[in-house]
Amino acid sequence: MGEKKMDLKKINSEIEKFVSDRDWDQFHSVKNLSMALSVESSELLEIFQWLTEEQSNQIKNDPKLMGKVEDEVADVFVYLMRIVNKTNIDLEQAVVRKIKKNAEKYPVEKSRGNAKKYNEL
Amino acid sequence: MGEKKMDLKKINSEIEKFVSDRDWDQFHSVKNLSMALSVESSELLEIFQWLTEEQSNQIKNDPKLMGKVEDEVADVFVYLMRIVNKTNIDLEQAVVRKIKKNAEKYPVEKSRGNAKKYNEL
Amino acid sequence: MGEKKMDLKKINSEIEKFVSDRDWDQFHSVKNLSMALSVESSELLEIFQWLTEEQSNQIKNDPKLMGKVEDEVADVFVYLMRIVNKTNIDLEQAVVRKIKKNAEKYPVEKSRGNAKKYNEL
Amino acid sequence: MGEKKMDLKKINSEIEKFVSDRDWDQFHSVKNLSMALSVESSELLEIFQWLTEEQSNQIKNDPKLMGKVEDEVADVFVYLMRIVNKTNIDLEQAVVRKIKKNAEKYPVEKSRGNAKKYNEL
Repeated sequence: MGEKKMDLKKINSEIEKFVSDRDWDQFHSVKNLSMALSVESSELLEIFQWLTEEQSNQIKNDPKLMGKVEDEVADVFVYLMRIVNKTNIDLEQAVVRKIKKNAEKYPVEKSRGNAKKYNEL
Repeated sequence: MGEKKMDLKKINSEIEKFVSDRDWDQFHSVKNLSMALSVESSELLEIFQWLTEEQSNQIKNDPKLMGKVEDEVADVFVYLMRIVNKTNIDLEQAVVRKIKKNAEKYPVEKSRGNAKKYNEL
Repeated sequence: MGEKKMDLKKINSEIEKFVSDRDWDQFHSVKNLSMALSVESSELLEIFQWLTEEQSNQIKNDPKLMGKVEDEVADVFVYLMRIVNKTNIDLEQAVVRKIKKNAEKYPVEKSRGNAKKYNEL
Repeated sequence: MGEKKMDLKKINSEIEKFVSDRDWDQFHSVKNLSMALSVESSELLEIFQWLTEEQSNQIKNDPKLMGKVEDEVADVFVYLMRIVNKTNIDLEQAVVRKIKKNAEKYPVEKSRGNAKKYNEL
């Protein structure tokens, strides 16, 4: 069910090598990387814009579309890692902390089965 | 220099527990998750919209803004993992393959120091 | 049935006055405006992310949510006009031309009742 | 300096005819239209992601890039009008009201020459 483990050190060194081989760090201000991340997220969004929710949940059975989904997911991940690397974020710590924050904003008893935003609970 | 290693198995089980505790999987069609991913990417983008590129590169020295950056990066990561989990993507494999594809689209000799899109090289 | 007519000259002069009163044109590079446009589009997207398509079509009957929708639609429009003004686009001509282009990409006989992307028709 | 006037009634009837000729209203739930709007905004964003702010301000002198900018601006406008039409928004009124709201959130004396968000003023 999803990733068992991932060698982030190796992945990150491949990403950084790709960028330095092309001398592209000069274009990768954090501002520009946040734009690229948003653009790639939208390319993923585009795949689903005219699909029903049910169709989107069946996409895993469509190898051709899954090839596109995997490419866009990978692009989002790569730009996210570039931002993480350039701003010295400890990603694991940031995620654990954010999940804790969300758990406080959305207490189980109030938010169970309810998609309302926390300020409307 | 970014993440050394990351216990994705543990992180993923925390994410999945958070969702199942709230019975939120019913709202998490892949379509809806792609919307949420895009929304969170834009919340990161918003932090940088009026900053210069230079200011964006100095953000790591601003603890208050970095708190917001970390929160948004974590949200992007969480929704990306939800999509990965629901579509059974092998993220490491997808990223390695996409970097290879990009390396072919952007050969070093043509793209060095050049941010042009591959179809304009 | 949508807008009957709109005094774009008056609207544009209100927008430009708002910006010049605050001396904000210095922050409004076309790059930054494209970021702001994307951020505002995502704030509209956020309203719909957990709604079903049916619920989204009923939103016009919910005055509270419609207040938010109107605000975000207005923000998107304002930033779009700023980009139009700064790049000297003739918006009416651009829209008419794009509809013509789309009509050629999506011929009626091939695309009727079919949401496929033109390169998959 | 931007649009003098615009025959929105004519533009809207061209948009609605394009959609009904293709029987595409069935795909145009407000949710899906908000996704399409966000996707098109990102395609505009993509044009500027690796340009400096200065280069983005000079784009009006580059006919080839301006062709792309005009196409994406038109696409954003078309989807915005579709949302306006489907939710019965009075766009002119919504924009005038939002500019007033923004004027209160960002009083001239506090926000002059200052891009801070209103909750940080």
